Amino acid sequence: MLVVKIGGSKGVDLERFLGDVPSVREPMVLVHGANHELNQVSEQLGHPARMVTSSTGQVSRYTDRRTMEIFMMVYCGRVNKTIVERLQGLGVNAVGLSAMDGAIARGRRKEQIRVIEDGKPKVLRGDYAGSIQQVDTRLLRLLLDSGYLPVLTPPALSSEGEAINVDGDKLAMEIAAALCADKLLIFSDTPGLLRDVRDEGSLIGRIQRDEMEQALEVAEGRAKKKVIAAREALERGIGQVVFADGRVDGAIQKALAGQGTVIG
Amino acid sequence: MLVVKIGGSKGVDLERFLGDVPSVREPMVLVHGANHELNQVSEQLGHPARMVTSSTGQVSRYTDRRTMEIFMMVYCGRVNKTIVERLQGLGVNAVGLSAMDGAIARGRRKEQIRVIEDGKPKVLRGDYAGSIQQVDTRLLRLLLDSGYLPVLTPPALSSEGEAINVDGDKLAMEIAAALCADKLLIFSDTPGLLRDVRDEGSLIGRIQRDEMEQALEVAEGRAKKKVIAAREALERGIGQVVFADGRVDGAIQKALAGQGTVIG
Repeated sequence: MLVVKIGGSKGVDLERFLGDVPSVREPMVLVHGANHELNQVSEQLGHPARMVTSSTGQVSRYTDRRTMEIFMMVYCGRVNKTIVERLQGLGVNAVGLSAMDGAIARGRRKEQIRVIEDGKPKVLRGDYAGSIQQVDTRLLRLLLDSGYLPVLTPPALSSEGEAINVDGDKLAMEIAAALCADKLLIFSDTPGLLRDVRDEGSLIGRIQRDEMEQALEVAEGRAKKKVIAAREALERGIGQVVFADGRVDGAIQKALAGQGTVIG
Repeated sequence: MLVVKIGGSKGVDLERFLGDVPSVREPMVLVHGANHELNQVSEQLGHPARMVTSSTGQVSRYTDRRTMEIFMMVYCGRVNKTIVERLQGLGVNAVGLSAMDGAIARGRRKEQIRVIEDGKPKVLRGDYAGSIQQVDTRLLRLLLDSGYLPVLTPPALSSEGEAINVDGDKLAMEIAAALCADKLLIFSDTPGLLRDVRDEGSLIGRIQRDEMEQALEVAEGRAKKKVIAAREALERGIGQVVFADGRVDGAIQKALAGQGTVIG
């Protein structure tokens, strides 16, 4: 069992990436983001992205209701269905879902966030974001057992039944843990984890389980989030986590063969 | 087994309509459109709807690739997932799908259409639209048998694996026929079929099977399409088709009780 996460960053050519999916022989769940396109469409619709920095230094998207509407359009509509269309065209029987469908992932909505703006602390309300607390694999197993390939994307569902923006990497990790996946492959627009984020030659090829803390110190920004997710993934029983390059031909097979940063 | 279609017209308050779904006791598939919102978002994104009239007088949306992208955003993202969110909030385990997912509906893409513009015949190419030729109920049955409520929307899949815009009423009818539904309920922003489209008091309460041709003569515009779909539905073994008001409280129960235009 394989869980594959493909990011929504600018540098990844989704069409090329998906070309490698038919080569995968084991059951697989594909999780995706759409970050870059969300920024574009939000801008076009006159409601540009508002990135905020929490008091602990984490950068995140402030997701008011209007942003959540656009989020659903871009993640669940445009990107999810373009992936399904492409996979169906390749003969893969894909089923596109949000984590709300079949209540796949539920979490706690954090309706207000403490942020630092212009150096001052501030409380923002009306945020549709949260963290995953519970995964129900029943729908995914039903699909996998019948030969479908689930294509999954945020948002998840709050305990009150509202859409909440959850981190895509965390979603992939939660799904992989709940399905007891052998491998979790996380693709983005870098060759893997880099010692120096500006130097693609500084790839960290392998992180053993006992080197995690050290890796956390070198990672920056979104990469840091990824290492935190990987550490939790290993703790939760996933065999291996690979951070790999989503920009190359045959990306999934290359990651399965050990290219990228292999953790665990 | 019930198939319920709710239109995407301006006058229907989707939130109110969905409030009646938990009261339905039998297995059900919900099919929806999003016509009005598609027009709005297309306008906002600087790619306004282009309605064309075919040489046979049928009015339809010219769906170039950019329109199909926006179509997927609005139908499969915004509207489909807002419905899922609302139903999950009501305790209904909904699963939102396009007709591409699991290859539920396949059809023939009609890449070029002959239209009349400014009184002149013209051929438009690059249309992502077509008609349904084949329905695969496997995924829907899998979901229904496990207690999920499928929420289904266009687009469907062409034989070449491309997204195609198909008529929502026709999709509902094809699904109802393939699932051998007892009833197909089609809701919109009128009380049912009207003798005079400008007079809501002119409701046709009942059309027997042998009165179909007569009904076709009085129907206009989109109502005509609906009667054609109903006639085909009856021919294909669906027990009853009801055209009913989607704007009222308890809309589904009222239609089940015979309010609206009952055909068959």
